Amino acid sequence: MQLNHVISTKQFLSPSFLAQLFKLADKNEEDDRNNTLKRVLNGKIMAAVFYEPSTRTRFSFESAMKKLGGDVITTESAGHFSSAIKGESLSDSIRIISGYADVIVLRHPRRGSAKLASQVSSVPVINAGDGTGEHPTQALLDIYTIEKELGRLDNISVAMVGDLLNGRTIHSLLILLSLYENIRFYFVAPSQLALPDEYQQYLKKKRIEFMEVQDIHEVLDKVDVLYMTRVQKERFKSDYDYQQLKNAYILDTSTLKRLKNTAIIMHPLPRVSEISLEVDMDKRAAYFRQAKNGLYIRMALLQMILANE
Amino acid sequence: MQLNHVISTKQFLSPSFLAQLFKLADKNEEDDRNNTLKRVLNGKIMAAVFYEPSTRTRFSFESAMKKLGGDVITTESAGHFSSAIKGESLSDSIRIISGYADVIVLRHPRRGSAKLASQVSSVPVINAGDGTGEHPTQALLDIYTIEKELGRLDNISVAMVGDLLNGRTIHSLLILLSLYENIRFYFVAPSQLALPDEYQQYLKKKRIEFMEVQDIHEVLDKVDVLYMTRVQKERFKSDYDYQQLKNAYILDTSTLKRLKNTAIIMHPLPRVSEISLEVDMDKRAAYFRQAKNGLYIRMALLQMILANE
Amino acid sequence: MQLNHVISTKQFLSPSFLAQLFKLADKNEEDDRNNTLKRVLNGKIMAAVFYEPSTRTRFSFESAMKKLGGDVITTESAGHFSSAIKGESLSDSIRIISGYADVIVLRHPRRGSAKLASQVSSVPVINAGDGTGEHPTQALLDIYTIEKELGRLDNISVAMVGDLLNGRTIHSLLILLSLYENIRFYFVAPSQLALPDEYQQYLKKKRIEFMEVQDIHEVLDKVDVLYMTRVQKERFKSDYDYQQLKNAYILDTSTLKRLKNTAIIMHPLPRVSEISLEVDMDKRAAYFRQAKNGLYIRMALLQMILANE
Repeated sequence: MQLNHVISTKQFLSPSFLAQLFKLADKNEEDDRNNTLKRVLNGKIMAAVFYEPSTRTRFSFESAMKKLGGDVITTESAGHFSSAIKGESLSDSIRIISGYADVIVLRHPRRGSAKLASQVSSVPVINAGDGTGEHPTQALLDIYTIEKELGRLDNISVAMVGDLLNGRTIHSLLILLSLYENIRFYFVAPSQLALPDEYQQYLKKKRIEFMEVQDIHEVLDKVDVLYMTRVQKERFKSDYDYQQLKNAYILDTSTLKRLKNTAIIMHPLPRVSEISLEVDMDKRAAYFRQAKNGLYIRMALLQMILANE
Repeated sequence: MQLNHVISTKQFLSPSFLAQLFKLADKNEEDDRNNTLKRVLNGKIMAAVFYEPSTRTRFSFESAMKKLGGDVITTESAGHFSSAIKGESLSDSIRIISGYADVIVLRHPRRGSAKLASQVSSVPVINAGDGTGEHPTQALLDIYTIEKELGRLDNISVAMVGDLLNGRTIHSLLILLSLYENIRFYFVAPSQLALPDEYQQYLKKKRIEFMEVQDIHEVLDKVDVLYMTRVQKERFKSDYDYQQLKNAYILDTSTLKRLKNTAIIMHPLPRVSEISLEVDMDKRAAYFRQAKNGLYIRMALLQMILANE
Repeated sequence: MQLNHVISTKQFLSPSFLAQLFKLADKNEEDDRNNTLKRVLNGKIMAAVFYEPSTRTRFSFESAMKKLGGDVITTESAGHFSSAIKGESLSDSIRIISGYADVIVLRHPRRGSAKLASQVSSVPVINAGDGTGEHPTQALLDIYTIEKELGRLDNISVAMVGDLLNGRTIHSLLILLSLYENIRFYFVAPSQLALPDEYQQYLKKKRIEFMEVQDIHEVLDKVDVLYMTRVQKERFKSDYDYQQLKNAYILDTSTLKRLKNTAIIMHPLPRVSEISLEVDMDKRAAYFRQAKNGLYIRMALLQMILANE
C-alpha cells in the first residue's frame, strides 16, 4: 500500500484502507514494546515545518520518524522565524524545502495551505493541521483508538461533547465513523456551538441516527464513546450564557458514575477544565492512550509514504 | 583536500579548488539521486547556531549533514533564546559550543562575527551569513549553479539586477567570477543602489569589462546569466523614485521573450515581486535548482572539513 | 548501576556513587578523544523540553545523547510555543511527551516542576534546572571538575564568590563537597548576598569549617578552588552599595598573582564582567574545561539511566 500526500480525511473513506493502516499501527506498537522496530526509514529525512506552535503534534511525528530510523529537520515557529518575515510565499518555501527532505509535515494557520503545499512540493506533504481546515492524522488516530479500545467500529454509540461548531477533530471523526454499520451519534453542545448544518445534512443523507442534546448527563448511560472537547469561554455571546452551561460540559467522578463500564472517554488534548484530574485514574479515561496511538498511526503513515520508495 | 574554517569567499579564489568542489558536489547529487550516499560523517556533530532566522539556509546545512550520516544540534534563534540575553559574549558561547560539536555553522547579524568565532573555536566554523559581511556558501552555490547550467565559466555575460549596493551575494559572486576568462558584467540598478565603487575599482584593476545600466530591458538579449535580487521599497529616498523605477526590475513573461534561449535566471531567494510566478514555468528559471544546489555544495564542504579527520 | 529520575543533588550523597559516575565520565572522555565511543543508546529517544532558554545546557545534553548513538526531539522555548499557551498543564504535557521518548530532560522556571514531572512521567526525568530549585547535573559536573583538576576531593579549601544568596549552583556544590574529609569553605559575598542561614547551619551540624569574608583578596592565597559567580547589579539595594563592592568580586591578572599556582578558577557560565578576558589565558582558568566536563557527566548519566534497560 503506497501513499502520497496526506491532506484530507476524505482520502481515507475506505474501511479496507483503514483496516490495513490499523494493522500496521498495531505492528509498530508491538515492535516498539519489544524493542524490535526495524530502521526501515534509514537515510530518509522528514521536514517538520510548523508555522504555529504545536509541540505535541510535532514531537509525535518526529518520534515516529526517528523510531523508524529516519531523521528530521525542524522549525518550531516558522511564522516568526523563516523568510516568511521577508515576505516569502508559502509556495516558494515549500518548493525549496522539498529539495532538502523526503517528506514534509506542515502545520499552518491558513485553511487550504496543505493542499497548496502539495501542489508545488516535489515530495509528499502531510497536513498536520491547516487552521479551520483539517487535521487528518488526528482523525485517523481517533478512529484507531476507538477500534483498539472497543474492539469494533460497527454498532457503537458516540457522544461528541463541547464545541461542535469549530471542532475540526469532531467533523473529521464523524465522517470516518459514518463508514461503519449501525452508528448512533449524540451531539452535546450549547446551541451557539451546535454541529454545523452541513454535517447534519451529511448524516441524514447517509441515514445515520443522531440526536442533539444540551446536557451531558442525558447521554452518559447510553454511549460507548464519550468524546470531550474544549469549550472556550470566549465562544459565548455573554458570560451569563457561559455560566448557565459550563457545568453541563464538565466531567468529574460524580458524572462518571453514570457512564457505562465498557465506555471510553476521549479528548484530543490539550484539556483545560472540562475533564477533572480525578478522572485520569479511571480505566475508562482513554485520552493519554489516544495521544500515544498518534505515534503508531504516524509511524504507519510514514511507512506507507516512504518505506517502499 | 582538507578545509578548516569557511569564513570568506576570498579563501576560494582558486579555479582548481572550485573545480574540485564542484566535482564533489556533482558526485553527491548523483549518489543522492541513486540512493547510494555513504554515511561518511557518521558520529560527527554539527552545531547550527543561528542568531537570526534563516530557515532555508539552516535546513540546507542540516539536510547536508544528515544525508552524509552526521548529526545536528540546532538553535533557530539564539539571539532571543540563549544566554545572549544574560549578557554572554559570542566568544564565550562559541568556545563552549565548540566543546560539544565537530563543526559550527554560524549565522549572526554582526559583520565580522564569523571571523571572531573562528579565532576562539576549537573546531571549524562555517559562516552562514554575518550581517553586511559575507555568506560564502551562497557565493559558492551560485557559481556552481552557473557552471552546471551553462557547462562553462569562461566566456559568459552576466547581468546583476536590483540592489547592487547592499547585496552581499552579488559582491561575492562578482569576485569569484573574476577568476575566469572573458567575463562581461552588466549592473542593472537604480543610481541609489549602484554597485559600490570599491567593486568597480576591483574590476577595472582586473581589466574585466562591465557596464552600468538602469533598465533591465537593455540587457536581456545580451546575457547568459540574469541574476535577480530583491529591490526593497524602503531603500529609496522617495516613493516617486521607487514608482519610476520599480517596473524596470520586474521579470515577467513579456520581458522573458527578449531573453536568450540558452540564458538562465537566478535569484538567491526569497523573492518578493521581482519575478512573477508565471516565470517559474520557464525552463530558464534556475532559481529553485540553484537552491537545491546549495545542498550539494554544503555536503561537499562538510566532507572536505570533516570526512578525512 | 541503574538510575531512574535525576531530580535533586540530594539523591547523590554517596562518595561511592560519585566515584562510579566519574569513572564512567572519564571513560567517555577517553573514548571521545580516541573516536572509539560505542553507540550504546542507539534507538533511544531523549525529549529536551525547555520552558525557558538555555542553549548551552540543551546543547550539552543533546550532544551527550547523540555521541552515544541516541536521538533527540527538542523544543527550545516550550513556554512560548507549546500548548502551554492554550492552558495545558505541565503534568499533561509530560504525560503525553513521555509516550514519545525514553527519557525527558526538563528545564522549567518553577521550583518543584521536575519533581512534579517525575511523578506523572512514564519514563525517567532529568532536572535541567527548575527555577530557584536545583540544577543537579551542574552540581555533578562541578564536583567532577574539582576531582579531575586537583586529583582529590579530600583536604581542599574552596572559596565561593559572588551571589551566594541566589546561586543554586553554589548551594548544591556545597552539599556535595560536604561528603568529603577536611573541606574548608570561604564565602566571599556582600552582606546582601550572603549564604543563607540554612546552609550555614548545615555546615555547622556537619562540623565543616567555613568563614565569611567580603573581599576576594583576603582568600586568594589560601584556596585550591576559586568558584566565581555572577553578581548582578540589580541585586543591590542602592547603586552606592554596588559601586563600593563591585571591584571586590572582579578577577583580573593583578588579582591572579596572589592565587596559588596549583589552584583552579571555576565559573558556571555565562560570565558577565566578574572574570576579565585576560584570565582565560591562565592555565588555572578551568571554566571552559568545566563546561566541557558537563558533556561527559551527562553522557554518563544517560548511560546509567538508559543503557542497561
